[in-house]
Amino acid sequence: MKKAHIDVYLIPTDDFHLSEYVGDYFKCREYMSGFTGSAGIMAVTEHHAGLWTDGRYFLQAEQQLTGSGIELFRMGMDGVPGINEYVAQHLKKGMTLGFDGRCMAASQGLRYEELVKSCGNTEAGYLIYQMDLAGEIWNDRPPISREKAFVLNIKYAGESYESKLIKIRKDMEEKKADLCLLTALDEIAWLLNIRGNDVKCNPVLLSYLIVSHEETVLYCFEESIKEIRKYLEHLGIKIRDYFSVYEEAGKYGRDRRVLADTDKINYTLYMSLLKSNAKILDHNTPVYFLKAVKNKTEVENERKAHLKDAIAYIRFLYWFKNHLGKQYMDELTVAERLLQERMKMEHFMEESFDPIVAYGDHGAIVHYSASKDSGYEIQPSSFVLIDTGAHYLEGTTDITRTLACGTLTDRQKQHYTAVLRGNLNLGGTRFLYGVNGLNLDVLARQPLWELGLDYNHGTGHGVGYLLNVHEGPNVFRFRITEGKKRVPKLEEGMITSNEPGVYLKGEYGIRLENMMVCRRCEDYDTNPFGHFMEFETLTLVPFEREAIVAEELTRRERKLLNDYHARVYEAVSPYLDPEEQEFLKRYTEPL
Amino acid sequence: MKKAHIDVYLIPTDDFHLSEYVGDYFKCREYMSGFTGSAGIMAVTEHHAGLWTDGRYFLQAEQQLTGSGIELFRMGMDGVPGINEYVAQHLKKGMTLGFDGRCMAASQGLRYEELVKSCGNTEAGYLIYQMDLAGEIWNDRPPISREKAFVLNIKYAGESYESKLIKIRKDMEEKKADLCLLTALDEIAWLLNIRGNDVKCNPVLLSYLIVSHEETVLYCFEESIKEIRKYLEHLGIKIRDYFSVYEEAGKYGRDRRVLADTDKINYTLYMSLLKSNAKILDHNTPVYFLKAVKNKTEVENERKAHLKDAIAYIRFLYWFKNHLGKQYMDELTVAERLLQERMKMEHFMEESFDPIVAYGDHGAIVHYSASKDSGYEIQPSSFVLIDTGAHYLEGTTDITRTLACGTLTDRQKQHYTAVLRGNLNLGGTRFLYGVNGLNLDVLARQPLWELGLDYNHGTGHGVGYLLNVHEGPNVFRFRITEGKKRVPKLEEGMITSNEPGVYLKGEYGIRLENMMVCRRCEDYDTNPFGHFMEFETLTLVPFEREAIVAEELTRRERKLLNDYHARVYEAVSPYLDPEEQEFLKRYTEPL
Repeated sequence: MKKAHIDVYLIPTDDFHLSEYVGDYFKCREYMSGFTGSAGIMAVTEHHAGLWTDGRYFLQAEQQLTGSGIELFRMGMDGVPGINEYVAQHLKKGMTLGFDGRCMAASQGLRYEELVKSCGNTEAGYLIYQMDLAGEIWNDRPPISREKAFVLNIKYAGESYESKLIKIRKDMEEKKADLCLLTALDEIAWLLNIRGNDVKCNPVLLSYLIVSHEETVLYCFEESIKEIRKYLEHLGIKIRDYFSVYEEAGKYGRDRRVLADTDKINYTLYMSLLKSNAKILDHNTPVYFLKAVKNKTEVENERKAHLKDAIAYIRFLYWFKNHLGKQYMDELTVAERLLQERMKMEHFMEESFDPIVAYGDHGAIVHYSASKDSGYEIQPSSFVLIDTGAHYLEGTTDITRTLACGTLTDRQKQHYTAVLRGNLNLGGTRFLYGVNGLNLDVLARQPLWELGLDYNHGTGHGVGYLLNVHEGPNVFRFRITEGKKRVPKLEEGMITSNEPGVYLKGEYGIRLENMMVCRRCEDYDTNPFGHFMEFETLTLVPFEREAIVAEELTRRERKLLNDYHARVYEAVSPYLDPEEQEFLKRYTEPL
Repeated sequence: MKKAHIDVYLIPTDDFHLSEYVGDYFKCREYMSGFTGSAGIMAVTEHHAGLWTDGRYFLQAEQQLTGSGIELFRMGMDGVPGINEYVAQHLKKGMTLGFDGRCMAASQGLRYEELVKSCGNTEAGYLIYQMDLAGEIWNDRPPISREKAFVLNIKYAGESYESKLIKIRKDMEEKKADLCLLTALDEIAWLLNIRGNDVKCNPVLLSYLIVSHEETVLYCFEESIKEIRKYLEHLGIKIRDYFSVYEEAGKYGRDRRVLADTDKINYTLYMSLLKSNAKILDHNTPVYFLKAVKNKTEVENERKAHLKDAIAYIRFLYWFKNHLGKQYMDELTVAERLLQERMKMEHFMEESFDPIVAYGDHGAIVHYSASKDSGYEIQPSSFVLIDTGAHYLEGTTDITRTLACGTLTDRQKQHYTAVLRGNLNLGGTRFLYGVNGLNLDVLARQPLWELGLDYNHGTGHGVGYLLNVHEGPNVFRFRITEGKKRVPKLEEGMITSNEPGVYLKGEYGIRLENMMVCRRCEDYDTNPFGHFMEFETLTLVPFEREAIVAEELTRRERKLLNDYHARVYEAVSPYLDPEEQEFLKRYTEPL
């Protein structure tokens, strides 16, 4: 930092595409801090280092930063300064702020520009964004990934590249844009109907894409597209080297109107456009909304993927319940066993995120990840929280079940029941078209709020189709955001998770997560009171009878539960062995 | 119109202050169309006239416009053009749009400016805003009101003018404003701790107010302030003539920064500021939020007002139930009887809005108003919906009860029960600080949505303290608005109504409305899961036992109902005669 004349240096978690999960090459923040969570930013000054992360990771960061000398800043908590505030406090006149602009969203980079200026630095030189200091001292840095991509057949994708392209260009026309710059890896994969393998659990390809009204140019590694070059060329897509985008974006953008989302393009790319006098139209990309609304083929496939996932899961459950207390099991072996069952299913690709198998008080760490050192043995008491998912050619799953490992206390049952009621009420709601995730979130939280409990995360997130397990814009949450990040209406075909929870630090955690697709009710077109919508739960794995206090369910909740269990049995049992069938029969008996 | 060279002329419902309810002098739209609803706008072209109104008034407007030749446009319905769309369609190049700019919000006037320009008219002359055509042909127009204002004692207002002024000026300072222009009548009355009598049911004074960092200037009629001139002068408030504001605002505003809400100042006023080169800072006024959060004195007084209102109401109920079917009653006599009971209470001022007493299918007209011609006789069957309220020195009430007039059908009971469940669930919720009315609305609608029913209005609105019965910004609704009109967090002290309903055209309407104040839960500061809030229901009038299907209530809902009824009995019974007590006892027995 001294050599580079940098006084405050920031190390974000992001890759060049602002991905939520990143390849090993990009894990500078993890390398520097030891904190392995998927969200956070580190700041280094001459005498101090701090790390900011959100509620999901407070406990984990606390543990992993112990002894590192790095101070933990709990984002969103009362009295805790945000990263911007921190930078403003430490950056005095004449001091320089540095970061690798390729790992920083343009919108955030612009805020730092302002900050630097507001400290009295008028020259641009006080912001250094073309230096990767953490990378320079990282000796055994893994190479950047160049894994092979493949074509997603139309029978899985449901809509051709050409058809999608027409919609993109229509949106560009409406916004009078000459170019559209796509940098989010899942958006590129979706549009081109290709998948890659450059980020663990996220089947995407490191690439950038420029769409004009005349042509489409893909920036990627030669090696990655060896096997799909013909497919791409057949579609008329031009292919350029991955790193050449910084220069070429400037050339393409010169004096033109470029549609790009400044939350998704990186600051360095933004600056090359700016230098060539491009006019940046800062909107959500057209892909963002189109991708979230799954087409009929995708929805039909997702049903198949969830059926397969349920077969594997219930086989795992059968094993778990029958071997618990009889053989050694720990968090890692449980995760492994579940993975083994999934791998037996046709078209299984990989896990959709690192499995969370969290026994006892580990369950209270919202995004816990077991390691060989930390993994608990499963004991015959309390809960084990299991949040896992898989990619199949037919789509992506994300499911959390919290299993009883032995006799539960009344309080544990009360909490499980409240979480279940939240899940059932959100999943079982009917609502008018026009309603969004801000409106419905309370249905999942109300049973917990009644008891004075809450969970420090959203109730649900969008899920990609054989893409990122977290995608926007559909969510369930109660905090309002405006403008580009506003919560959209729930549309037919949107797939969202439903995952209320309770976390008691040092005791246990409970989360129950289903995936749901939004659809029209039967009377959508005929009901005089309005267009009614509902959710179809895709996940087909039973809840934990022994953890439920039946008297605390309302009649309606009990019916929702019994109907769901009957549906699970009917759908999954034909694929099970007789003893597994019998097991599932008992698991799903009416309550 | 021909003489004035106007091709499209608009007649809004508003007065010069964009009030929701207006004095008789301002009822041009009603005079021209015959439609008496409180919201709507009329457009007149050479060969056509149209009227736009919202869901509350569809049925009423339909009836009142019959035979008038005026076409009804149902706002918000699929395929119905909005007023702006209509103007855009009818205004061709070279044609002129006209309206009285004093009755048009500046923000709306600016949109019409744009419209006029987009038709190819570049000269400002194609928008004529200083002409009151409807007024010109209205021969027996009532005079503008100049009723006497009075001072609201600090024991009712709870906070002095001086203290409020400090907060206003602090907000002005933060926004670097030289002036703040207040034109909303309730905001002026609130700030000055005065009340007036210029709008029926809205105890406000026709006036404008300019606050600078040095002085406060009130524009009003000499006659109105005769009795409070000393009070105003003692506070150092300068007094000018009501109509001089258009000239003086220009003088005051010359080259200065003026804080004003363009949704609340009229277009003519806006134009005078603009012509003197004022910079208009378009925000909610500081009064808007301050007024909505009632202080401790106001909340304590509101409790007293609601107790008085409940005593009067329950006496009315006793009369109603004992005389129903035995003596002639119609919608008007019922309203009159309820008013008589209220008038007996100390510090009763007036009704807080025109009473809605709607028997049978009249109940399905959301904002029905009975007249001598239309009023039904109350028959011994179906429901009568009664939505009324009163102003006392101790505050404002707004209550709806739907009374059973005879044996109800199962369907009627089912609908009543669903509405009641919505009311109980919203009123009984606990929620985290940070939550707003968009988040909670679904609690009131869910029981109806389950049955495929809905109501075409918000679930709740803010209520003023001895001011307008509808005030912002707090609401319960599900449709999202952004920017200046965004739904705010629920704050301790906000008073909001809770009024779900069901309306079956040609059959009956049910609405159940309580007023509630938002407060902190006991464990607000100690609960580790967050700061919990709740509502205290201010209204103290029982629901209709015979209309409730007890088995359809959840255990929790039943407890909420029984607890509420016990509270009502305990609070009100000491003020009743023995036979009324006995009556209330039976009415509020546990279910």
